[in-house]
Amino acid sequence: MTNSGDTCLFAGGQGVHLETTRECVPSRLPVARAFLSGWIRSIRSQKEVLFLHVNDGSSLESLQVVADSSFDSRELAFGSSVEIQGQLVKSPSKRQNVELKAEKIEVVGHCDAKAFPLKYKERHPLEYLRQYPHLRCRTNVLSSILRVRSEATAAIHSFFKDNGFVHIHTPIITSNDCEGAGELFQVEHSKKTKVPEENFFNVPAFLTVSGQLHLEVMSGAFTQVFTFGPTFRAENSQSRRHLAEFYMVEAEISFIESLQDLMKVMEGLFKSATLTVLSNCPEDVELCHKFIAPGLKDRLEHMLKNNFFIISYTEAVEILKQASQNFTFTPEWGIDLHTEHEKYLVKHCGNIPVFVINYPLALKPFYMRDNEDGPQHTVAAVDLLVPGVGELFGGSLREERYHFLEQRLARLGLIEAYQWYLDLRQFGSVPHGGFGMGFERYLQCILGIDNIKDVIPFPRFTHSCLL
Amino acid sequence: MTNSGDTCLFAGGQGVHLETTRECVPSRLPVARAFLSGWIRSIRSQKEVLFLHVNDGSSLESLQVVADSSFDSRELAFGSSVEIQGQLVKSPSKRQNVELKAEKIEVVGHCDAKAFPLKYKERHPLEYLRQYPHLRCRTNVLSSILRVRSEATAAIHSFFKDNGFVHIHTPIITSNDCEGAGELFQVEHSKKTKVPEENFFNVPAFLTVSGQLHLEVMSGAFTQVFTFGPTFRAENSQSRRHLAEFYMVEAEISFIESLQDLMKVMEGLFKSATLTVLSNCPEDVELCHKFIAPGLKDRLEHMLKNNFFIISYTEAVEILKQASQNFTFTPEWGIDLHTEHEKYLVKHCGNIPVFVINYPLALKPFYMRDNEDGPQHTVAAVDLLVPGVGELFGGSLREERYHFLEQRLARLGLIEAYQWYLDLRQFGSVPHGGFGMGFERYLQCILGIDNIKDVIPFPRFTHSCLL
Repeated sequence: MTNSGDTCLFAGGQGVHLETTRECVPSRLPVARAFLSGWIRSIRSQKEVLFLHVNDGSSLESLQVVADSSFDSRELAFGSSVEIQGQLVKSPSKRQNVELKAEKIEVVGHCDAKAFPLKYKERHPLEYLRQYPHLRCRTNVLSSILRVRSEATAAIHSFFKDNGFVHIHTPIITSNDCEGAGELFQVEHSKKTKVPEENFFNVPAFLTVSGQLHLEVMSGAFTQVFTFGPTFRAENSQSRRHLAEFYMVEAEISFIESLQDLMKVMEGLFKSATLTVLSNCPEDVELCHKFIAPGLKDRLEHMLKNNFFIISYTEAVEILKQASQNFTFTPEWGIDLHTEHEKYLVKHCGNIPVFVINYPLALKPFYMRDNEDGPQHTVAAVDLLVPGVGELFGGSLREERYHFLEQRLARLGLIEAYQWYLDLRQFGSVPHGGFGMGFERYLQCILGIDNIKDVIPFPRFTHSCLL
Repeated sequence: MTNSGDTCLFAGGQGVHLETTRECVPSRLPVARAFLSGWIRSIRSQKEVLFLHVNDGSSLESLQVVADSSFDSRELAFGSSVEIQGQLVKSPSKRQNVELKAEKIEVVGHCDAKAFPLKYKERHPLEYLRQYPHLRCRTNVLSSILRVRSEATAAIHSFFKDNGFVHIHTPIITSNDCEGAGELFQVEHSKKTKVPEENFFNVPAFLTVSGQLHLEVMSGAFTQVFTFGPTFRAENSQSRRHLAEFYMVEAEISFIESLQDLMKVMEGLFKSATLTVLSNCPEDVELCHKFIAPGLKDRLEHMLKNNFFIISYTEAVEILKQASQNFTFTPEWGIDLHTEHEKYLVKHCGNIPVFVINYPLALKPFYMRDNEDGPQHTVAAVDLLVPGVGELFGGSLREERYHFLEQRLARLGLIEAYQWYLDLRQFGSVPHGGFGMGFERYLQCILGIDNIKDVIPFPRFTHSCLL
């Protein structure tokens, strides 16, 4: 796209437009001479005219190229890469504003149709495409999903930057092994004999399951911090909702004393990122909504227009107990909510996302803040449940009181391992809280993609690590 | 900072200012009532007045709080966290525009001076601070470095977004093990017996050393892509320039046919990110330049004002051969450039960054494009050398010709392992190229920080994985 000479042409955003970069400005040419590079998405021969659709990945839309049939050749095939020079003219058809009248067509790289796993004019199922992680991004649906992923990433970064958060790269390799948030991957020098005394890091090292504790270090200096990076679970799961490697957006905020303050940020993040994505890649989102998740468009607008609901865990259990539906797991106070319960609760709330707050202390990790209530003893935890996906965010106020935290760590035998974490409560401790959002689940939620493996470029899960 | 009531006060950017958020707008109050939360950075008792400097991490600058001496207490100490209500007034001193006249001071979390490893009014050496990764962010110097890191991260994302690149999360865990870019970390389920047949992923899995090959997959669909994430080397190195876990910014661009096109993007990225950082956190940068790297400010401006140099590897060797300096490694065509050579070349170019291009084929990995020259056979590789750091970027045109690549893979016995990579050349291959920039080295370069361990929040290296 940065080739010199003539005009660079980008099929960008909504409809095709002419990009006038510094290198290629034809400012006084009455007819726009243009230069296009991309891959052939379709080809149609009609009497003396050849129609090509060429896509460069900058948008879902391809540019129509009209060429004299003398250009026709066996090399000019679906999947081939081409460089085309010509004139950009108004299109006589209503399907596009402009088209490229080709003057010169060069096939840069041929594509052998027989060997190519993507077939012309076929809509391949997502399961089929998963076998070809190195090629599936060349389909409409995967390229749309990945453009949305890129846009959502940028929107999330912007949300935090605009609100004064400092971005922190929390570590991927960590010696914390006891948080209990799922099974761990261990990391070791690949060549060494695995003798415990000879660890590369001197201590056993693991892939992070969450950046939270490290982020709490930083919230003791910066007040508002966030991280957005890969996290890992070595769970033997073949589910449509789990990956061994996935992305989390996590934030910590100091000097907040209520879950309300936290929920405001969570709801703001969800709505702000989603509105940005809808506004910046409407065609990509529409493709998913049209072919994969009919009806989601309206449901999403409904979510964005309304305030999210807030119910307590205790209320949630009551709602579930009164439900006419039969659950596989009988709802009862003190037992964790299962996916079937989460789905019911969201439906009960009219398909508007719902915050469930104040969970039983016994169900939650040591760092969540004790509500000191009773006899049903709870902590200041919050989960956000959303339609289609269930739990999307998890968060809590953190236990900032030294003695409360010390007691809970002592009960778990973790005082020594978490001395550094206790230290944070010894030196200028502040009330604070934070949350994490599963980024792939977020994409599943807004695009209606059923399987989490289809919203990440290279999915890793039990028995599979392709490329 | 999101507390309700009164006015929220941010000590942000250049000088202190009053932030009028939606929650707390005192639009018609003649005197600004304000609410401040943060940590005490200094405390000074003077006759009947108490001066505090309180910092919330949003900027280097603290807000001066003036209080009646009746507020004095043992709890009001260096490192303690406080919430203060009062009136924001014009300061009589020239050192600040405004100050907070305290009406109410609450010590939220006391800080025990004796146990606290950071001592009041001491400028601790960076080596000392490295022992306290959970507390060092509370010092001026580390908080400045980490704010710059956050700003630089945002600037790099913006540069690519503004130039139409699609952001890709390349995988952290990969089954590619043969690229030869340093020693690898292996990943395995932490609980399993390590029997090869029982790998979690069915194949041996490693932590990525570079996202390049996966990014090349994506450049076959999106034309312009980038990634910015953690990469890993299990090198037994105690150097000031190496980490086991570090961040790389990598980009791939399709349809480019010359290194010139690539170098334009590399130079653009360096200059654009640096100008943004200098403009958005001048005080943080100044702190480093003043106390750590005197003279760097001018050197950096010099770099930004001038076009970077371009010399070939062959020219570089000639320059080195003619140097009056004695090198530990004698420069000779066919031998890799060492740090001492890189430093000499940058100095030779008047401390302006210099691109060195067209390296011997024998020195470079299989994916770099053959220049088909001779008898000194080279590939279209490019390194960018910068003052202070040496190699900052590495890049190349990629071998897009099926048979050239096949031959080189065959010679290495890698055909089978890289069949997917060859596939990319079989189906609509395009000329393309890309580069990677070490993010920590970039920060070292612009801030003048000698040890790479001080520009990352939680450094991981041989024998060390704290927290």
